[in-house]
Amino acid sequence: MTTADARESTPSSKAPRTERGRKTLRKLLDAAAIEFGEKGFHEASITGITRRAGTALGSFYTYFDSKDEIFRALVDDLSGKVREAARDALQSELPALETERAALAGFLSFAREHKEIYRIIDECEFVDPQSFRHHYETTARRIHERLEEGMNRGELREGLGEAHAWAIMGMNVFLGLRYAVWSEEAAPEEVAELANSILRDGIAPRSSNKG
Amino acid sequence: MTTADARESTPSSKAPRTERGRKTLRKLLDAAAIEFGEKGFHEASITGITRRAGTALGSFYTYFDSKDEIFRALVDDLSGKVREAARDALQSELPALETERAALAGFLSFAREHKEIYRIIDECEFVDPQSFRHHYETTARRIHERLEEGMNRGELREGLGEAHAWAIMGMNVFLGLRYAVWSEEAAPEEVAELANSILRDGIAPRSSNKG
Repeated sequence: MTTADARESTPSSKAPRTERGRKTLRKLLDAAAIEFGEKGFHEASITGITRRAGTALGSFYTYFDSKDEIFRALVDDLSGKVREAARDALQSELPALETERAALAGFLSFAREHKEIYRIIDECEFVDPQSFRHHYETTARRIHERLEEGMNRGELREGLGEAHAWAIMGMNVFLGLRYAVWSEEAAPEEVAELANSILRDGIAPRSSNKG
Repeated sequence: MTTADARESTPSSKAPRTERGRKTLRKLLDAAAIEFGEKGFHEASITGITRRAGTALGSFYTYFDSKDEIFRALVDDLSGKVREAARDALQSELPALETERAALAGFLSFAREHKEIYRIIDECEFVDPQSFRHHYETTARRIHERLEEGMNRGELREGLGEAHAWAIMGMNVFLGLRYAVWSEEAAPEEVAELANSILRDGIAPRSSNKG
């Protein structure tokens, strides 16, 4: 669960109060990721989720009212995991450009292990458009904040704004689709370095940059 | 229809042979874009499409066997229009970096007028995964070819490859979602210039680029 987020994954009245409850909720969300990832929203079922989770049907209804509700909670949960994957890669105090590389490498590694995330977030556009938009808006805002921090420290050029954050997010999302979900032919670090070279130098001839 | 494409939108046996036939097919595809864009694949219907097109049901079956088939044809058709929108912007012989800016500005203008394209291509991931993949692979290949041409002419730095093309495509797709579909608060030219500044200079401080 991502309590730091603007929206809670479950209404607070349903949030688990015990460690055992938290474990059950975790099992249900992990099972939901597999069920929705494999079957898609429409074919997925609550009993499919509880079977995979090894929990009783009653446990499901302790935390969620419907398939829609656990899907929404799952999108929030995955959104939080994406954030954590990037953040884990940023533990040390890196310069701003290195931060972007580490965040992308962290995301690519995460996406390799959780390929279902693409299908789930993408299907969210149809099942719950608001959560879809929320996911990308918060992700872009996070990148935008990193850019502002980099500008404040003089490590990035002036004038970077929201559009640049969306451009970087788009790069990262499509590189993940290509090199984490569809194929693993290039290592996350290698792909992150190629993308980072655009942020570092652009794509113009180096001599003209240095001229 | 995008006859230059690797795949034809309709099997050749069903391709229209007369000008009148081509007009009817065009009407059906335009109507399908609105029907699928508004209702989504599952809620959309063949009668909904022919009603919007103002054609008889029989005309539909002259060209398509099913809702799936016109959906696939529509994705190919939109894919071709995206290519044309970028190509129209490239009529004059621009330097490679200007070409990328013009291609993005052209795409953003097109996406504003055809906001439904996002929903249709995105839903394609679920309705017809192969067409979804084909759309992005051909788009990335086109960008990759432009990068190679730019490298050959010495207008772009060496070493740009497929990953850079996917990064640029991702930038363009997400800038379109944000600034063409969700909001029109910034002009296509303005957004294209912000994205182009990344390709031109990267995001590092300019002084360090200039050594």
